[in-house]
Amino acid sequence: MAKDEKKLVEEITSMNEDFAKWYTDIVKKAKLVDYSGIRGCMVIQPYGYAIWENIQKELDRRFKETGHENVYMPMFIPESLLQREKDHVEGFAPEVAWVTHGGTEKLEERLCVRPTSETLFCDHYANIIHSYRDLPKLYNQWCNVVRWEKTTRPFLRTMEFLWQEGHTAHATAEEAEAETLRMLNVYADFCEKELAIPVVKGRKTDKEKFAGAKATYTIESLMHDGKALQSGTSHNFGDGFAKAFGIQYTGEDNELHYVHQTSWGMTTRLIGAIIMVHGDDAGLKLPPRIAPIQAVIVPIAQHKEGVIEKAEQLRATLSSKFRVKLDASDKSPGWKFSEYEMKGVPLRIEIGPKDIENNQAVLVSRTTREKFFVSLDNLEEEVANHLEKIQQEMLDAALQNREEKTSVAVSYDEFKETIENKGGFVKAMWCGDVECENKIKEDTSATSRCMPFEQEELSESCVCCGKPAKKMVYWGKAY
Amino acid sequence: MAKDEKKLVEEITSMNEDFAKWYTDIVKKAKLVDYSGIRGCMVIQPYGYAIWENIQKELDRRFKETGHENVYMPMFIPESLLQREKDHVEGFAPEVAWVTHGGTEKLEERLCVRPTSETLFCDHYANIIHSYRDLPKLYNQWCNVVRWEKTTRPFLRTMEFLWQEGHTAHATAEEAEAETLRMLNVYADFCEKELAIPVVKGRKTDKEKFAGAKATYTIESLMHDGKALQSGTSHNFGDGFAKAFGIQYTGEDNELHYVHQTSWGMTTRLIGAIIMVHGDDAGLKLPPRIAPIQAVIVPIAQHKEGVIEKAEQLRATLSSKFRVKLDASDKSPGWKFSEYEMKGVPLRIEIGPKDIENNQAVLVSRTTREKFFVSLDNLEEEVANHLEKIQQEMLDAALQNREEKTSVAVSYDEFKETIENKGGFVKAMWCGDVECENKIKEDTSATSRCMPFEQEELSESCVCCGKPAKKMVYWGKAY
Repeated sequence: MAKDEKKLVEEITSMNEDFAKWYTDIVKKAKLVDYSGIRGCMVIQPYGYAIWENIQKELDRRFKETGHENVYMPMFIPESLLQREKDHVEGFAPEVAWVTHGGTEKLEERLCVRPTSETLFCDHYANIIHSYRDLPKLYNQWCNVVRWEKTTRPFLRTMEFLWQEGHTAHATAEEAEAETLRMLNVYADFCEKELAIPVVKGRKTDKEKFAGAKATYTIESLMHDGKALQSGTSHNFGDGFAKAFGIQYTGEDNELHYVHQTSWGMTTRLIGAIIMVHGDDAGLKLPPRIAPIQAVIVPIAQHKEGVIEKAEQLRATLSSKFRVKLDASDKSPGWKFSEYEMKGVPLRIEIGPKDIENNQAVLVSRTTREKFFVSLDNLEEEVANHLEKIQQEMLDAALQNREEKTSVAVSYDEFKETIENKGGFVKAMWCGDVECENKIKEDTSATSRCMPFEQEELSESCVCCGKPAKKMVYWGKAY
Repeated sequence: MAKDEKKLVEEITSMNEDFAKWYTDIVKKAKLVDYSGIRGCMVIQPYGYAIWENIQKELDRRFKETGHENVYMPMFIPESLLQREKDHVEGFAPEVAWVTHGGTEKLEERLCVRPTSETLFCDHYANIIHSYRDLPKLYNQWCNVVRWEKTTRPFLRTMEFLWQEGHTAHATAEEAEAETLRMLNVYADFCEKELAIPVVKGRKTDKEKFAGAKATYTIESLMHDGKALQSGTSHNFGDGFAKAFGIQYTGEDNELHYVHQTSWGMTTRLIGAIIMVHGDDAGLKLPPRIAPIQAVIVPIAQHKEGVIEKAEQLRATLSSKFRVKLDASDKSPGWKFSEYEMKGVPLRIEIGPKDIENNQAVLVSRTTREKFFVSLDNLEEEVANHLEKIQQEMLDAALQNREEKTSVAVSYDEFKETIENKGGFVKAMWCGDVECENKIKEDTSATSRCMPFEQEELSESCVCCGKPAKKMVYWGKAY
């Protein structure tokens, strides 16, 4: 066994033994990310970046279909501009990177590296919005942002990350609310259809909402270890930013009105979600729709006459419809099987001399590991069907896992016991007071994930203080 | 005439009167860019950003076809990392933005915002390259970079700009040189085929080469005002960076070798080139292949029955193959004609009651302003042909303009006279000494653009000092 081979068949830490180490092993061994010399900043390697490109492509298509246009704002925000909206600056100022010098010259005013771009969009909107004819403005930006985090983990929490941020301006409060919910639904649909990740949709409590927002909506997903991950948020700003930045338009009534705004974002942390929702002890499992390699062709007994030629012929045919790779390297088939399982490739296609004789290929599913002998005459159709099936199986498995890890708690003892021993989502009633949220966080380190749109009345009193309950909340420990 | 209408038919400054103002007028009136509150940073508006997206798509396709993979590196470079390669730090340190604080804490080591990412790629390559099997590494990155420029102009020279930077590592010097030239050719092909911009390919003199490079190759294009624009560069680093960063691999010979590296980049300044190569006094002229709107449909007498319906039907049919817009707003057809001419839309499609009666539409070319009456039965084919024709006409016109503005100078008086009165490219012989480059720059403000691959022997002596000539050089004033 060559030196390279040894290194790769080395075991990934088992999930149950140490979930955090399992995660790091996968990130490194599947070559998604390399650590950089800069604290908390990632080098996103080709395989990781290709996942992000596929995410971008599918999200961007949905944004454009819903009438949004892409723009690009500066990456620097002057300190005075950041300070324009009170809640916003309080939320972000403690965690921004400050540029104080340009070349050898000290700047008169510090610039922060954008942690998010509300203030820049507002400044621009104040320039370009004058009349009701200018509305709505439906803008989106793909870019990098920086938040000075204390502890970081690849994809999940990094100082610099990649994301998209939608920023829209509307004539009325109703339109802004409709947009906020529309984009939340776009996110939820994207997660379920493309990433095979089921999400709970709901509203954040005041404690958990975005700095400067009137209302924050969220999609929450559940990882394999029972922790929650906020996977996308959509904020309704009302006219708060418009008042701070003076964004007014002349209406059909010839009067001046403030615009109503929204923003919504999804980030490279989605790649962390994919890893932790779908992965297993053999490695990554990628949903076919965003997998950089949807099917890998592994020739068997490739030294025999005609095998590599046939494999190459299959690759050429399939590659017009699928993202296919042929691995004709001199590694052993067994090594290749492990390698592409670890890399989460949904489908393996084996072709050897016997298969060629029988005009067949062997398809092996990453999800079930079942083998299927299929005729080469309808290989394209079979590959399409199997990828479709794998995508569905992954969503089903994720849904089942979430359901198994979702509990109900009516008493506080039951609540604490469940958070501590079982984890997952705990549904429980809440009085609406931030004091109870604080106490729950202190006692259990769980936070309110959201007040789901689908409310249930589990009991009449708050699980924490016993006062009359106002809302059912999903609680959980979160990344 | 409504207030909005007045504003738009307002004249653009004529090119001949004031080229710089003409440029700024177009950038603002076509809504490519809005100025931001941050010195030298642009807000790229939807129409401008859509051009960039089309450029990205076409370049990215070419990169992937030539085997390159996209990655993402951190945007910060620690000061000590930037200093690792001597020439490189000398070239860039005076023009970087420095981050000195994270949140409220002062950093132990300053971080610069990347002006380019050689040092980061080298640091990563040192981590991941061990064996000849790891080579070549053919990476590319799409990102933003910052250079603390003194004077800035939208697209042409901005503090922050968007670009792609390819960074590759190879086993041998020959492979690195081949890659450097291959990517220069990809750039040249892209400019001519997609942007309709002819370029001169050549090598930079030592004075003009990239900080840290062994050789820099460039493509130079000529603007309407006779100034040159460096439109893309490709650098061969030899093993200089590899030695500074310790990037070594074990060869098939079992010995340690340094890798040989390249980098190459193209930026949002290409949008400036498109404006200045193709535009005229009516506004932008966009090459069909990268135009956000390839054809605009303007209904005539749109209040008449069936006109808007027919126009919408044409839009629906054409939009499967082309980027089409239907403007059914209540503005006058004349206003729309000017507006989309100003925005550089290559083809206008007029459809009115008489056209519908005759089963025809009127096509109007942005380049020649000719009108063509075409049958609706083969509208798709006609649109395709006209777009193809316009693309070719734009390249031809740009080529003709460049040829008219390219001169030969044998004596220094002739050289100075041509630079001062005619501008454009001046081909002249050079002895190879930096002193002559310096003198020419001082006397005329022209710089050596490149030593073209296609050398001619115009005379035997240097145009400046009269000593024996080594190279023919393209000289010119440049952006």
